[in-house]
Amino acid sequence: MVVYLVGAGPGDPELITLKAIRVLKRADVVVYDRLAGEEILGYAPEDAKLIYVGKKAGEHHKTQDEINRILVEEGKKHETVVRLKGGDPFVFGRGGEELLALREAGVEARVIPGVTSAVGVPTSAGLPVTHRGVATSFTVVTGHEDPTKPEKQVHWDYRADTLIILMGVGNVRENMQEIMKHRPPETPVCVIERGTTEDERVILGTLEDIAEKDLRPPGIIVVGEVVNVYREIRGSQG
Amino acid sequence: MVVYLVGAGPGDPELITLKAIRVLKRADVVVYDRLAGEEILGYAPEDAKLIYVGKKAGEHHKTQDEINRILVEEGKKHETVVRLKGGDPFVFGRGGEELLALREAGVEARVIPGVTSAVGVPTSAGLPVTHRGVATSFTVVTGHEDPTKPEKQVHWDYRADTLIILMGVGNVRENMQEIMKHRPPETPVCVIERGTTEDERVILGTLEDIAEKDLRPPGIIVVGEVVNVYREIRGSQG
Ligand SMILES: C[S@@+](CC[C@H](N)C(=O)[O-])C[C@H]1O[C@@H](n2cnc3c(N)ncnc32)[C@H](O)[C@@H]1O
Ligand SMILES: C[S@@+](CC[C@H](N)C(=O)[O-])C[C@H]1O[C@@H](n2cnc3c(N)ncnc32)[C@H](O)[C@@H]1O
Repeated sequence: MVVYLVGAGPGDPELITLKAIRVLKRADVVVYDRLAGEEILGYAPEDAKLIYVGKKAGEHHKTQDEINRILVEEGKKHETVVRLKGGDPFVFGRGGEELLALREAGVEARVIPGVTSAVGVPTSAGLPVTHRGVATSFTVVTGHEDPTKPEKQVHWDYRADTLIILMGVGNVRENMQEIMKHRPPETPVCVIERGTTEDERVILGTLEDIAEKDLRPPGIIVVGEVVNVYREIRGSQG
Repeated sequence: MVVYLVGAGPGDPELITLKAIRVLKRADVVVYDRLAGEEILGYAPEDAKLIYVGKKAGEHHKTQDEINRILVEEGKKHETVVRLKGGDPFVFGRGGEELLALREAGVEARVIPGVTSAVGVPTSAGLPVTHRGVATSFTVVTGHEDPTKPEKQVHWDYRADTLIILMGVGNVRENMQEIMKHRPPETPVCVIERGTTEDERVILGTLEDIAEKDLRPPGIIVVGEVVNVYREIRGSQG
């Protein structure tokens, strides 16, 4: 009777942890939404119940309350329930809400971290999010502000050396404009689409011109001098 | 003739990725420093050469230049060299410098991300670094400013909802004082020591009083309202 919130990593099915695989292998139920690497579901036993809670064409998709209710119900009925999430369950993954709902319902719940796309995607591409003398801090932020929130917390005046924007490709033009109120327009920017997968694409630019490029979600947007380190690393390829 | 910079995860040896294990298993050479989970070295073949480049009592420890030179030398001689690092290689891991040195020397190098302690340690403890309506951004920063850097980039006026400080336990008093110039003294703080290991300890407090507690490195310091969400999650444990 344990529900595990499990991070599946950023896309490459090999970037899952041993711990995640261990619980998947004894899962009675797996609750999942869109995952970059569907192969990961293959670790579950053949007779495990797979519950898809993501968007489906033509159907309404499940609200967070419905997902919470499913997790509580299944958690009360089964020995091992796995709630699989892309990246890390607590990086814009609404894992906190699920954990709270489970605990409040008296269902035991544990969390298994995963490689978050926020760090793992740049790292895998060879883009260091910190770099001695260049960046001693990075901020991870959503580019898709939640309109239902009481107060708008995304203000774009983050002062970390590196800015990493998730869910930001759709609003790239507005967001870059906002960031240019706080950083010079020539600040280098790198967009990494579908990182760690075979379809990975890297697009380089600046705050001023990146929105003019052909960008397709999902992608990570990295802003800051570390993008020049990445250029140097690529350029010096022996 | 490939050098892999590999993230080993935050401490729990099960929080390593499949991809890391796959390259470790065929490593001719493994270059490592202090690792939370020494078990991980056990994945290397029995006859692999293990090179320790961390601190040793009574000996001078290797400089980054020496480490870079070792990586280049071994990379030119062997099929598969693994440079193993705690967490993710690019989060305060000096992986960028190693990657640059390798590329400049014409040695092929690839990077395998790992679960960084910055996110994985709070997640594993049940502390969500983002939370709907509470935190839509987090900043990861070093609490141990590099004194050789040309300009002091750590200013503590990071404006993300959540602040995550690595290498900060030693300077906790000074750093909390600096942060109090920008956030109220009653802001909740959580220190997680040796996260994801059997010796994990969690200490709760505020910006004002956390330095009075008995803290022992290594630890992650999390500052912000998400610490209250964590309290709620712990308190509602059924
Ligand atoms: C709802 S958030 C969930 C993030 C996830 N919990 C994590 O830790 O990676 C989804 C966003 O993550 C980013 N993302 C996830 N996987 C990615 C990948 N393989 N490449 C680029 N961006 C990715 C995109 O910005 C996408 O819009
Ligand atoms: C030099 S940094 C390297 C970080 C590493 N590259 C990563 O991604 O986790 C070392 C710092 O990481 C933090 N750290 C690493 N492992 C930790 C753990 N298991 N629990 C708490 N903090 C940890 C501590 O703040 C420590 O001082």
